[in-house]
Amino acid sequence: MRFLVINGPNLNFLGKRNPAIYGAETLEQINAYIQDSFKDDEIEFFQSNHEGSIIDTIQADSEKFDGLVINPGAYAHYSYAIHDALEACPIPVIEVHLSNIYKREAFRRISVTAPACSAVISGQGKKGYLLAIEKLKDLV
Amino acid sequence: MRFLVINGPNLNFLGKRNPAIYGAETLEQINAYIQDSFKDDEIEFFQSNHEGSIIDTIQADSEKFDGLVINPGAYAHYSYAIHDALEACPIPVIEVHLSNIYKREAFRRISVTAPACSAVISGQGKKGYLLAIEKLKDLV
Amino acid sequence: MRFLVINGPNLNFLGKRNPAIYGAETLEQINAYIQDSFKDDEIEFFQSNHEGSIIDTIQADSEKFDGLVINPGAYAHYSYAIHDALEACPIPVIEVHLSNIYKREAFRRISVTAPACSAVISGQGKKGYLLAIEKLKDLV
Amino acid sequence: MRFLVINGPNLNFLGKRNPAIYGAETLEQINAYIQDSFKDDEIEFFQSNHEGSIIDTIQADSEKFDGLVINPGAYAHYSYAIHDALEACPIPVIEVHLSNIYKREAFRRISVTAPACSAVISGQGKKGYLLAIEKLKDLV
Amino acid sequence: MRFLVINGPNLNFLGKRNPAIYGAETLEQINAYIQDSFKDDEIEFFQSNHEGSIIDTIQADSEKFDGLVINPGAYAHYSYAIHDALEACPIPVIEVHLSNIYKREAFRRISVTAPACSAVISGQGKKGYLLAIEKLKDLV
Amino acid sequence: MRFLVINGPNLNFLGKRNPAIYGAETLEQINAYIQDSFKDDEIEFFQSNHEGSIIDTIQADSEKFDGLVINPGAYAHYSYAIHDALEACPIPVIEVHLSNIYKREAFRRISVTAPACSAVISGQGKKGYLLAIEKLKDLV
Amino acid sequence: MRFLVINGPNLNFLGKRNPAIYGAETLEQINAYIQDSFKDDEIEFFQSNHEGSIIDTIQADSEKFDGLVINPGAYAHYSYAIHDALEACPIPVIEVHLSNIYKREAFRRISVTAPACSAVISGQGKKGYLLAIEKLKDLV
Amino acid sequence: MRFLVINGPNLNFLGKRNPAIYGAETLEQINAYIQDSFKDDEIEFFQSNHEGSIIDTIQADSEKFDGLVINPGAYAHYSYAIHDALEACPIPVIEVHLSNIYKREAFRRISVTAPACSAVISGQGKKGYLLAIEKLKDLV
Amino acid sequence: MRFLVINGPNLNFLGKRNPAIYGAETLEQINAYIQDSFKDDEIEFFQSNHEGSIIDTIQADSEKFDGLVINPGAYAHYSYAIHDALEACPIPVIEVHLSNIYKREAFRRISVTAPACSAVISGQGKKGYLLAIEKLKDLV
Amino acid sequence: MRFLVINGPNLNFLGKRNPAIYGAETLEQINAYIQDSFKDDEIEFFQSNHEGSIIDTIQADSEKFDGLVINPGAYAHYSYAIHDALEACPIPVIEVHLSNIYKREAFRRISVTAPACSAVISGQGKKGYLLAIEKLKDLV
Amino acid sequence: MRFLVINGPNLNFLGKRNPAIYGAETLEQINAYIQDSFKDDEIEFFQSNHEGSIIDTIQADSEKFDGLVINPGAYAHYSYAIHDALEACPIPVIEVHLSNIYKREAFRRISVTAPACSAVISGQGKKGYLLAIEKLKDLV
Amino acid sequence: MRFLVINGPNLNFLGKRNPAIYGAETLEQINAYIQDSFKDDEIEFFQSNHEGSIIDTIQADSEKFDGLVINPGAYAHYSYAIHDALEACPIPVIEVHLSNIYKREAFRRISVTAPACSAVISGQGKKGYLLAIEKLKDLV
Repeated sequence: MRFLVINGPNLNFLGKRNPAIYGAETLEQINAYIQDSFKDDEIEFFQSNHEGSIIDTIQADSEKFDGLVINPGAYAHYSYAIHDALEACPIPVIEVHLSNIYKREAFRRISVTAPACSAVISGQGKKGYLLAIEKLKDLV
Repeated sequence: MRFLVINGPNLNFLGKRNPAIYGAETLEQINAYIQDSFKDDEIEFFQSNHEGSIIDTIQADSEKFDGLVINPGAYAHYSYAIHDALEACPIPVIEVHLSNIYKREAFRRISVTAPACSAVISGQGKKGYLLAIEKLKDLV
Repeated sequence: MRFLVINGPNLNFLGKRNPAIYGAETLEQINAYIQDSFKDDEIEFFQSNHEGSIIDTIQADSEKFDGLVINPGAYAHYSYAIHDALEACPIPVIEVHLSNIYKREAFRRISVTAPACSAVISGQGKKGYLLAIEKLKDLV
Repeated sequence: MRFLVINGPNLNFLGKRNPAIYGAETLEQINAYIQDSFKDDEIEFFQSNHEGSIIDTIQADSEKFDGLVINPGAYAHYSYAIHDALEACPIPVIEVHLSNIYKREAFRRISVTAPACSAVISGQGKKGYLLAIEKLKDLV
Repeated sequence: MRFLVINGPNLNFLGKRNPAIYGAETLEQINAYIQDSFKDDEIEFFQSNHEGSIIDTIQADSEKFDGLVINPGAYAHYSYAIHDALEACPIPVIEVHLSNIYKREAFRRISVTAPACSAVISGQGKKGYLLAIEKLKDLV
Repeated sequence: MRFLVINGPNLNFLGKRNPAIYGAETLEQINAYIQDSFKDDEIEFFQSNHEGSIIDTIQADSEKFDGLVINPGAYAHYSYAIHDALEACPIPVIEVHLSNIYKREAFRRISVTAPACSAVISGQGKKGYLLAIEKLKDLV
Repeated sequence: MRFLVINGPNLNFLGKRNPAIYGAETLEQINAYIQDSFKDDEIEFFQSNHEGSIIDTIQADSEKFDGLVINPGAYAHYSYAIHDALEACPIPVIEVHLSNIYKREAFRRISVTAPACSAVISGQGKKGYLLAIEKLKDLV
Repeated sequence: MRFLVINGPNLNFLGKRNPAIYGAETLEQINAYIQDSFKDDEIEFFQSNHEGSIIDTIQADSEKFDGLVINPGAYAHYSYAIHDALEACPIPVIEVHLSNIYKREAFRRISVTAPACSAVISGQGKKGYLLAIEKLKDLV
Repeated sequence: MRFLVINGPNLNFLGKRNPAIYGAETLEQINAYIQDSFKDDEIEFFQSNHEGSIIDTIQADSEKFDGLVINPGAYAHYSYAIHDALEACPIPVIEVHLSNIYKREAFRRISVTAPACSAVISGQGKKGYLLAIEKLKDLV
Repeated sequence: MRFLVINGPNLNFLGKRNPAIYGAETLEQINAYIQDSFKDDEIEFFQSNHEGSIIDTIQADSEKFDGLVINPGAYAHYSYAIHDALEACPIPVIEVHLSNIYKREAFRRISVTAPACSAVISGQGKKGYLLAIEKLKDLV
Repeated sequence: MRFLVINGPNLNFLGKRNPAIYGAETLEQINAYIQDSFKDDEIEFFQSNHEGSIIDTIQADSEKFDGLVINPGAYAHYSYAIHDALEACPIPVIEVHLSNIYKREAFRRISVTAPACSAVISGQGKKGYLLAIEKLKDLV
Repeated sequence: MRFLVINGPNLNFLGKRNPAIYGAETLEQINAYIQDSFKDDEIEFFQSNHEGSIIDTIQADSEKFDGLVINPGAYAHYSYAIHDALEACPIPVIEVHLSNIYKREAFRRISVTAPACSAVISGQGKKGYLLAIEKLKDLV
């Protein structure tokens, strides 16, 4: 099967700076870990700090895939535009957050994109991506 | 006269997917319908999912036009940056929403861009664009 | 076709006093302008400062018409009773405001009657009534 | 005994239009049903869409009766003026709503008139009026 | 000079019932007391429970007077329509409340009509009307 | 027919202590009064101060009955768990409050359990239970 | 009779600077105007920018007077300490504001000291002090 | 390894009634599915409608296990007592919701227990329990 | 004299786990310390994680005692049911919190049970119980 | 040991006026009662209606003492300046309120100074001061 | 040129106690540093914990100076009286905070005095005073 | 030293249009003014209307510089994504606003990016950039 994994703003910085905040592994390492875990599946990875590029990608590419995993980063807290793009998306979507967003600043407890997803996984670290893809396989 | 019609995020998807949500006509068809209705006027169309590109376009091009019609899509609900761009815009602006935003989710009842426009038309479908251009002609 | 145009409280004062606030044209002039614009249609005009009379008129007369245009004036901001009357109304309804209500005091940004209408036009001046009737013709 | 039953705005439309919303029975039928249920009592019925007329009736007539039943319709949600009239009313008052107001839009969950009544019955349909009158008989 | 004194809903009940709430004097007695205090002035009195009639009176009659005193009763707390009528009124207006509205229920602490008046007198009893008229004489 | 009457926390104290607050009759007396009023029906009474026990009873027993009357006491104001139990309940439910909850402290004006009921009776004293059962008979 | 007139912070600046905001008359002139208007009464004037001094004066001196007039200035909007001092004050108190506080910034619409007064006069200019003293004479 | 799976109020009703709301599988079937998926692990299941019993179980038993999975049901939205029990719990805890709580009523978007957990999985159906246990194995 | 000391949810864990959060002493040690401090008085101790059991105990036992000390734990923040039980309690009640609840998370600053108590002691550690009992002796 | 007892605004009026509100004992009597209860300790008393003087005293004198007891009166509800002074204070501080602030007006339920204290005692009357000093002895 | 530097409550404690909170330098050292940096200018320094004294100083002295620098300390968060004094001040005013108030407790993010200043500098430490004076020189 | 100056949306319009709102100087002139003021430092300037490009620049370039000055324009009020980029930035950051944001519309008083900066300068005009760079030199 084919899956698209989208990571939002600042996630390209994972493992590069401030490992105490962002963890020790880079996004490339996490992506490799995901691909390794699903050897028989084709997984495409996309990261952008641009809200518009994330929407473009959701629109343009999602029909080629069986499911979509999105970690919207801080856009989760205010991007109604990404919400609308996900709502119109014809394939199942699962939202992932590396940390438990309930344990951080108050503004991070609200996700405006989550109502457009079929599931939310928060606080599982990189494993959250695996869990999301496994679930997408069930849904398809 | 010359008019600029800007459509915001996800409006490029009109008629392409989920017609129940997005209507049966494509944005291209709607644009043709607008141009057909104003055969003697020159109308330029711009669509982007990128907040920054919308601001760029408002700034760069608006002086070449006699009026501006904008459907900010979901950016209407949180983009103070587009609000500021419209406020500095030297030509009259009218905000259009295809559906009546008062009838949908609570977050859609707020428009932060509307205070920078001279009028708002909500719930008129594609005809809303025609009404906006007619009004702009009066204002000029 | 037959249309009913209802104007709410204080709109009978248009053009009579404080033209800076209320504009230079009287309601009678605006009504004539509307009738002139739709020579082949029969348009009935009703104005009242009485919330109850507006509801009475919506109930009693709306079946005789093909569409209803309402400028609820300040009642737009708190009259759930007019909202309920419009919701039960068997013909399409469009809400019109002369000025852009988003540009005025905070209490004017909320319309409790708008969710019962199929469209809202705000900030178009007297032309808003024409646009509303044109749209109603499409809807019928 | 003598009772006054007041129905507020839009309740004169019961059964006339939109039976899915307003029920299949007319207000006249409901009134007949109430009178039939209390053959030995004298019951007067009053309906108005006018807030002021409802207040006039509460003031002028309530001393002639042993109890008052009021379905304030949408006025329940904002009419402090009816609240004050009920508070000054020398006979016991019971507020009735045909549907369970807790199950509908958020604005309907608040009743500003209820604190001036001795009881509230919500969601009992036309039977609510009977229950109210029975209770009033006990209170007198 | 000529003054118009408008009393809103339930004030016709002053002194008639529940003197503990409404005081011992009737509105007629208070009106006589006002007229007696200003023997050389012509004072007209108007009371209504109808929001629309209060607006009608403000519009129709205010030009015949030198000043307007209004006790909007409970309409003070939600009638934006009366607010708009007062704002368009060409003569000075003073708002009067018999009791100190700050000492009562929370909803009475807000006056939406007061921003359209030049002064507010609250808690002075019937004397408040005299003080208002004296002040109006100064303003004229 | 068979009915279940559930009373929530502190209602076992009715008539036992503080009659000014809780009334002079005990819950046993009220229950007897209910049974006496419906001699041909089988009525089961359950009282508990335990949120969990109330949920257990709603789940376990409700299928044996034709209707359910519940006075959730203070749980009405915060128990989403009881709300969920009532929502899943296959028989009609009516919520009863002895006093008019709109007349008491602000926190008592909110009922989170009411949206899961078909009707609410508030302020009728012990008679409220009778009215609820009569209504349930109609619904069945 | 003997009256105490207390003016709060910044009122000593009346007429001295920024006459557009603060009026053209000085506090001394206003005080003289008050004393002139009540030649037979003994009136003491006190002004301070110090919340504590205002409380000291209310406590220490109020028993020597028949009534107290207070213009708390900006302390009206947050000084619960002055509120408590006024509440314990054994003589009647009337709160005065020179301008109509309802017409200014949002924070000025709230008076936390007013619930401890028997009346509030707002927007009458210097005449407000006279009206307050006249009313105090009635109350004594 | 040893795991404890706690299910809160109304989850014992899964599959028994209202399958449209609660799904077609019973809690027993889901528990069997979980045990089957982790044949080499020892898993204990506990369900209660009683807030206190859930706290008792968290306290008493958690030291015997390597990790805790909790679906707090509606208690997630208000039980600060369960929050405190989880916070003091010496083993890692993961919160699971069968449906995506962001897609339901507004009150369900808040979880007061989540800040005491290391991860939250919402909207994955019964698979959510598996994902939680897999993650717990990683954490131990 | 006889006193009842009730401790709410999770207080049975004092000193057992997480001493950094819960302190080093067990509840048994604290209870012994209390009894030792009042050798001539009879003190009964009750702890439960069950809201309902706490209410049962307040109802059933309070008449046998001269005063009641309650540390409601997290129930202080939402249990209106315990509030009602305390309000109906015929003996004086004092609420105790080991830590200063004003210094912790925002939700802990609100106590819904405190308005039903005659005093609140917060942040005194185990000594708070002694102070409460001493005060109860004065009140009796 | 040496203790400083600070009383805020209006507490100098205790027992002097309005004993129903302020109690029958004067502050001097309460101070004597405190000193009598701790004969071997040196206790200094300070009262002021001036926020600034309270801060001065906290700063200047607190190093000479072993502990500080403060009843901030109404300043508890808004004085962030006293909060900051207490936070910088090198000796332990306990806040005391004579009445249970949870039982009075809504604005009194908030204490902005309490987060800077190690404990709060509310509703114990004059004994609250003794309890505070006893606790301070433990803390030192 | 001549400048006045006002420091509000608790700033006299800088460097004296709790250097972790208040920094290592005393206010005297900071004042010397400011004077040293502007050798050719005359700078007067005023510090007070008294809101009233700060207002007195703003009023009395500001005309003698070319500009005013104010660090209102905690008064920034609630003193509308200082706001009013600054608003009436005839010379330019700049507000300074040593730390970045956006990084601290929520109540410190609001400044009610800032709208009366021409600029705000927050988080620059002692250098903030220099920057403010430099800017004032530009403005004059 | 090397500094990066980032300007957000619409700041490229400074001096080009609407000088009353945007000032008379262009961004290029302001940049030249900054470079002129720090002749020995290397300063790079970046402006974009694109939220994503601002984040890209913060990430990619900040390590090459000694400090970062950012004027986020309207993004200051809602871009949590820029907040996160600044928080991960390894060099010190200072936020600058040309006008005093406290003096403008309510939505401009909130800065969600400021908590990630070490200082904020608001209302100093173009000089604010100089002050920010001077401060950065101190911090490095």
